[in-house]
Amino acid sequence: MTAFEPLQNSLAELADLRAGISMLTWDKEVNMAAGSAPRRARQIGTLAGLYHKRSLEEVPGLLEAAEKEASQLDSISQADLREIRRDLDKQLKFPLEFVKKTAQVTSEAQSAWLKAREENSFLPFAAKLTELVDLKRQSAEYAGYQANPYDALLDLYHPGMTTEAVTRLFEGFKRELGGLVRSAANFPQIDTSFVRQVVPEDKQIAFSKMVLSRLGFDFQRGRQDSSAHPFTIPLAPEDVRITTLVSENDPLRMLFFSIHEGGHGIYEQSLRPDRYGLPSGQHCSISIHESQSRLYENNVGRSQAFWEYFFPHFADLFPDKLAGIGPEDIFRVVNRVVPSPTRINSDELSYHTHIILRFELENEMISGKLQVKDLEKAWEAKMQDYLGIRPASANEGVLQDIHWAHGNFGYFPTYSLGSFYAAQFMQNAQKVLPDLENEFAIGNFTSLKLWLNENIHRHGRVFLSEELCKNITGEALDVKYFVEMMKNKYHHIYQYS
Amino acid sequence: MTAFEPLQNSLAELADLRAGISMLTWDKEVNMAAGSAPRRARQIGTLAGLYHKRSLEEVPGLLEAAEKEASQLDSISQADLREIRRDLDKQLKFPLEFVKKTAQVTSEAQSAWLKAREENSFLPFAAKLTELVDLKRQSAEYAGYQANPYDALLDLYHPGMTTEAVTRLFEGFKRELGGLVRSAANFPQIDTSFVRQVVPEDKQIAFSKMVLSRLGFDFQRGRQDSSAHPFTIPLAPEDVRITTLVSENDPLRMLFFSIHEGGHGIYEQSLRPDRYGLPSGQHCSISIHESQSRLYENNVGRSQAFWEYFFPHFADLFPDKLAGIGPEDIFRVVNRVVPSPTRINSDELSYHTHIILRFELENEMISGKLQVKDLEKAWEAKMQDYLGIRPASANEGVLQDIHWAHGNFGYFPTYSLGSFYAAQFMQNAQKVLPDLENEFAIGNFTSLKLWLNENIHRHGRVFLSEELCKNITGEALDVKYFVEMMKNKYHHIYQYS
Repeated sequence: MTAFEPLQNSLAELADLRAGISMLTWDKEVNMAAGSAPRRARQIGTLAGLYHKRSLEEVPGLLEAAEKEASQLDSISQADLREIRRDLDKQLKFPLEFVKKTAQVTSEAQSAWLKAREENSFLPFAAKLTELVDLKRQSAEYAGYQANPYDALLDLYHPGMTTEAVTRLFEGFKRELGGLVRSAANFPQIDTSFVRQVVPEDKQIAFSKMVLSRLGFDFQRGRQDSSAHPFTIPLAPEDVRITTLVSENDPLRMLFFSIHEGGHGIYEQSLRPDRYGLPSGQHCSISIHESQSRLYENNVGRSQAFWEYFFPHFADLFPDKLAGIGPEDIFRVVNRVVPSPTRINSDELSYHTHIILRFELENEMISGKLQVKDLEKAWEAKMQDYLGIRPASANEGVLQDIHWAHGNFGYFPTYSLGSFYAAQFMQNAQKVLPDLENEFAIGNFTSLKLWLNENIHRHGRVFLSEELCKNITGEALDVKYFVEMMKNKYHHIYQYS
Repeated sequence: MTAFEPLQNSLAELADLRAGISMLTWDKEVNMAAGSAPRRARQIGTLAGLYHKRSLEEVPGLLEAAEKEASQLDSISQADLREIRRDLDKQLKFPLEFVKKTAQVTSEAQSAWLKAREENSFLPFAAKLTELVDLKRQSAEYAGYQANPYDALLDLYHPGMTTEAVTRLFEGFKRELGGLVRSAANFPQIDTSFVRQVVPEDKQIAFSKMVLSRLGFDFQRGRQDSSAHPFTIPLAPEDVRITTLVSENDPLRMLFFSIHEGGHGIYEQSLRPDRYGLPSGQHCSISIHESQSRLYENNVGRSQAFWEYFFPHFADLFPDKLAGIGPEDIFRVVNRVVPSPTRINSDELSYHTHIILRFELENEMISGKLQVKDLEKAWEAKMQDYLGIRPASANEGVLQDIHWAHGNFGYFPTYSLGSFYAAQFMQNAQKVLPDLENEFAIGNFTSLKLWLNENIHRHGRVFLSEELCKNITGEALDVKYFVEMMKNKYHHIYQYS
């Protein structure tokens, strides 16, 4: 037996413990009755504490022993050691007191955010957000960084990503697509009334499951349920839970929630079960995870070929069978550009303006250029500048997302990076598999899934996101593929040039 | 802070860990897809191992410290110390190697039982059952006992219960009711055709939830779902999960599963949340647990008053609204005596004959009087003697229950003890609350629940089962209350005297 095996066994047991936490969390969102909430929070907290304690007791010694024999290991296990070391060193940089203090303030910030939402006023949230920003700046100092404190926060969700690189990508977006976003308000309106009909929940769910099965989500190793906010949670590659949210008179909304989470779910189901608990059996980064959900949602689910195949099944949901409507009409509906003051209601294009706005404000707060007291004004100015929209209220503006109350600074950019990666991956897949769209049009999504399995999923966390991107596409992440896709799409729909 | 608090905190954390195991177990039976089964088994195994390890690391020292200050504690906390000590001493009596060996053989015995079931032959199970019986005899020696090795096995499910006491109760049953069971084959048949109609699953479930709410199961602190075998599993008093099983053309079957598990569920929901993790916040014994399910199932759900209230709601389930049928007809259907070769299909009376048979055979195997190779013959002889029935096959006979394959020797008697306790408790409740049946007849089950809360539930494990029984009824468990109830019931239905 090598010294790697005890490390692997210990990490597999930790993954089992994490599965217990995931199960309690999934159930909380999907099943649990309201009266169980406080006890459940404590149960999850206890298991998380046990996980933390046990990982710090066991992993350092086992890792050190394994590292001594690293040269005898294959390259994947060597990558595992590198990543376990990265996680551990990162974890050890934060003093326990600081971690506790952050947990405390984060919990208070969530209550303050809820209160602010109730009053529809930023003020009740401002003081706690100020404390949180200070803690995040402190956390960047503990973690360390080269150029910019914000780098340390990005690194939590996307190891290796820098403020400079994100800025370059977002500047590219603004330069190439900023004008398109701003002129969208003047685009011709696209009629959506024919899909805004009541479709019973069970029919919607059945259709969504049929689509997900076709795309490659395996219902023998996972489930789909309903929850207030759609999410994906894995218990293991063999048991991946995705959720969706049904709007009775908007079946497309539910479908796209399903496809998005389905993309996350297919990724998790395709991780290597023999590397369970090891980095080589885990997702690469939040950005790459998001690339998979966005690829299925936008590059597949919003494609003409997708609707050529699924249109008749979709039309069957409606009492009038969508008589007189065709796949091209649905294609136009799901790709229309309608800028909105809220991120989650945004279309595929103007969505990124929301992310850029948040990234810029976060970066300014962390670097100290922007004070929390001036945040709402800065938000409104950027919203006016980028989208020509003025939020009607605090809830529609600066209070719309819970991310900051959760302390998740550095997270928002991964949403856009995911879309940009998806466009770049898809362009490459189409080059290698020129028949891909014809396959979609006859309901065959297998080649795409196998390509993703081979190029992305099976590598887990063996490569950093940017290495993975270079291995697949021959170059670093470049926004130009996303830009090109957007321009082609809107040229087709709106004759925009 | 007293030395009791750290012990209480540690036990609460262990209960949190157990909640994770319960959640994974509940989900396995209710939701999980088939492909997740092997991984799930390992995840549950890991958490169970962590639980075991942590409890042995933490509890002994904390308990010893608390025991030193026992005299300063209130009587409930003193009872907690007594019970924690009982559990720990019991646990420490079994060498780790023996525990592992038992787990191994039990796992093999379950596979052997499944194989035997497939072949409908006792033979493939016999060798592993022989090994298990030897291990159980060994386990009795480790645990220690006064008069009879079987006492040590009973004690696992019902602390303080003895073979002699069970024998006395069962001899009482045989003497007073054995003749009634044997003559049941000649009773006039009761027509059941009017309730054997198809009722859609959702209507059955809605009715069952209405009944459970009325009885006092709190759906704000628990759920009811469907599973292949109905069960109750608590995550905490604030979150109790019960399941049922729908037969489309037999809504009464489903209802009685629901009421039975509902009785278990009401008990678990009524344990003291402030004693979470402590014996004073846990059920008293398996027998007392069963007394609660049986009381609701038989003494409430099979009463005339119950059907006076629920009949119109029940009749609404059927297309013909059960025209021409009345509450008394349902009362007769749910109380009819129809001896069966299988325990789980048995009526309220002849059921206990099945338990007595198993108890006697178990006791003979553990004491060495009966060899496993002769078990099937002995089974058939007793079945003929007590019920006048010859099982058509091994599956219908000696292979019908999984309990022995699980190694649960000493468990079966708790089913009958539960019924006997239920009759004795109910007789007492009716003495104190003479209006109880009139309340049932107008759908009011609150006084009964409050009486159970006050007399049984809130005490947790502070008293042993027999102490509890004496506190409530002034005497030890006596089969005469059950006998009297049965005689009255069948006199009414069959004019039997």
